[in-house]
Amino acid sequence: MSTAPTAASATSRTKDVLEDLEQVLLAFMRKHRITHEQYRFATQFLVDTVKQGEESLLYDVFFEAESTDIGNRTRTGSPEAIEGPFYLAGAPELQEPYVMPMRDGERGDVLFFVGKVRDVEGKPLAGAELDLWHADADGLYSNIHPNIPLWNLRARFKTDSNGNFEVRTIVPPPYEIPKDGPTGQVLKTMGRHFFRPAHLHVKVRHSELAEMTSQIYFLGGQYLDNDVANAVRDGLVATLECHDDESDMKSRGLGRPYYTVEYEFVLAPAH
Amino acid sequence: MSTAPTAASATSRTKDVLEDLEQVLLAFMRKHRITHEQYRFATQFLVDTVKQGEESLLYDVFFEAESTDIGNRTRTGSPEAIEGPFYLAGAPELQEPYVMPMRDGERGDVLFFVGKVRDVEGKPLAGAELDLWHADADGLYSNIHPNIPLWNLRARFKTDSNGNFEVRTIVPPPYEIPKDGPTGQVLKTMGRHFFRPAHLHVKVRHSELAEMTSQIYFLGGQYLDNDVANAVRDGLVATLECHDDESDMKSRGLGRPYYTVEYEFVLAPAH
Repeated sequence: MSTAPTAASATSRTKDVLEDLEQVLLAFMRKHRITHEQYRFATQFLVDTVKQGEESLLYDVFFEAESTDIGNRTRTGSPEAIEGPFYLAGAPELQEPYVMPMRDGERGDVLFFVGKVRDVEGKPLAGAELDLWHADADGLYSNIHPNIPLWNLRARFKTDSNGNFEVRTIVPPPYEIPKDGPTGQVLKTMGRHFFRPAHLHVKVRHSELAEMTSQIYFLGGQYLDNDVANAVRDGLVATLECHDDESDMKSRGLGRPYYTVEYEFVLAPAH
Repeated sequence: MSTAPTAASATSRTKDVLEDLEQVLLAFMRKHRITHEQYRFATQFLVDTVKQGEESLLYDVFFEAESTDIGNRTRTGSPEAIEGPFYLAGAPELQEPYVMPMRDGERGDVLFFVGKVRDVEGKPLAGAELDLWHADADGLYSNIHPNIPLWNLRARFKTDSNGNFEVRTIVPPPYEIPKDGPTGQVLKTMGRHFFRPAHLHVKVRHSELAEMTSQIYFLGGQYLDNDVANAVRDGLVATLECHDDESDMKSRGLGRPYYTVEYEFVLAPAH
C-alpha cells in the first residue's frame, strides 16, 4: 500500500491548512478585540512592507527559523538553517585556489572556510557544489546594499576528489538587519534589537542528493543567544580558530594573523 | 481616576498583541508542520499579492468583517460594515435632486435610495453627508475596473433640514470579486465561490458625531447567506421594494418599474 501523497490529498491538506489559518487568525482578532482601525493599520502595514522593498524580510525575521526546525526534525544529514532574504542565484564559479570575489583591500580578517561534504553513509562527495554568500566587514550584502559590486562575497565552488573544500574570504561581523523600514518598526515596538550573530550562508548541492541550505555561526560570537531571527542551533556553530604563528602566516603568504573555520556537511538522499 | 489609555499603555498593548501574534503563528506552523518550501511558497504568495495590485483584497475577504463585528459590539448607533478595498475619497458633491454620476444609458433598474440620518437620541441630523459608492450593472467599480469614468456611481450628498435624503441610482447586482489573481487562487483552493450579495457602500459623516462606514444589502438577494467576505449582518439588510404602478411611475418621470430601498442611519457620538 502506497503512502505517497496524491495531488488530491495535497490539495485537501492545503484546504485544511488555509481553513485553520482563517480560524486561528479570527480567534486572534476576537481575543485582542482588533478594531477596524487597527485592522486597517495592520493590513496597510503589510502592503507597505512589500511596497518599500522589504519583500519577505518581515516574515523571515519572525517565522523562517520555525520552518527549518520543522524540516530538520524529519530529515537526515546535517541541519538546515534559514536562507534569509538575500540569496542570489547564479553566483560566479571560482577556479582553484578558491578566493571569494572581493574588492581591492576588502576589509576584514582573513578567513579560510574549510571542510568536507559527505553523504549519510559517510562517503565523501567529490564535485559537490557550495554556494556561499555573506556580509562584508560593515555587515552589508552585495546586491542589497548600494555601492557594492554585484557578486562581492558571493560565489560557487566545488569539493575536490576527496570531498574537501577550502575557500579564502573575510570574517563577517554580526549583521544588523535593515532597521529603518517596517520590519525595524515592528522590532522597535517589541523592544528588540536588530542584530544577527556573524554567519556564513551556504547552499550545498550534489546531483544525486538533496540540496541543503545552511548557515555557519562562530562559537563565542555576539548575539548567538539572542539572534533577532532566532535561528541559531547547536549543530550550526563552529569554532573560529585564530592562527598567529609567524611561519604559519608566512606559509599562507600573509603578514597578519588569520582565521579558519571548519564544517562538515552531510547531504541527505534526494526526496 | 481616568481610564483613558496613555501613549505608553497603547505601546505596551501593541507589544503584547505582536508577541501573541508571533506565538500564535509559530504554534500554527508547528501544528501543521509547515516546511521551509511551504513557508517560502506562502511568503512569496503574500508578496506577489501586493505586487499584482490586489493590495488588501486578500485580507479584506477573510478578516475585515471580524473587525467590524468587534467594533459593533461596543458602539452605539447603527451597525458598521466592512469598507472593502474599493473606497475612493473625494467623490463629487451632488446638487439636488440627487442623481448619482452615471453614463448615458447606464444599465440597471432605477433605484431610489431613501432614508434618514439621526443621532442616538433620535434627533434628525440636517446636513449630514452620505458618501455612496457601488458597482454598475456588470458588477464593476469605477477606478478599479477599466473603461468606467472615474467617479461613475460614486458621489457625496447631504441630508435636508429634516435629516432625510433621497438619491437616484441603479440597483447593483451581486458582486464577483476579482478571481484571476492570488485571492481567487486561495478561494478556489478552499472550494469557495467568489460572490458577494448585491450591496450599496456608504460612509455617513456629521461634524459633531463619529463617522461610520456601512453597507446596505437587499432582503431576499442571492448570496446573503454565503457572502464570500462573510460580512452580511441582520441590521444591514433592507427591503428592495418594486414600484410598478403606472401613474406612480409617470409621476417619477419613468416609463418602467423602479425600486426603492429605505434605511435609517444612527450616528454614534464622536470618540
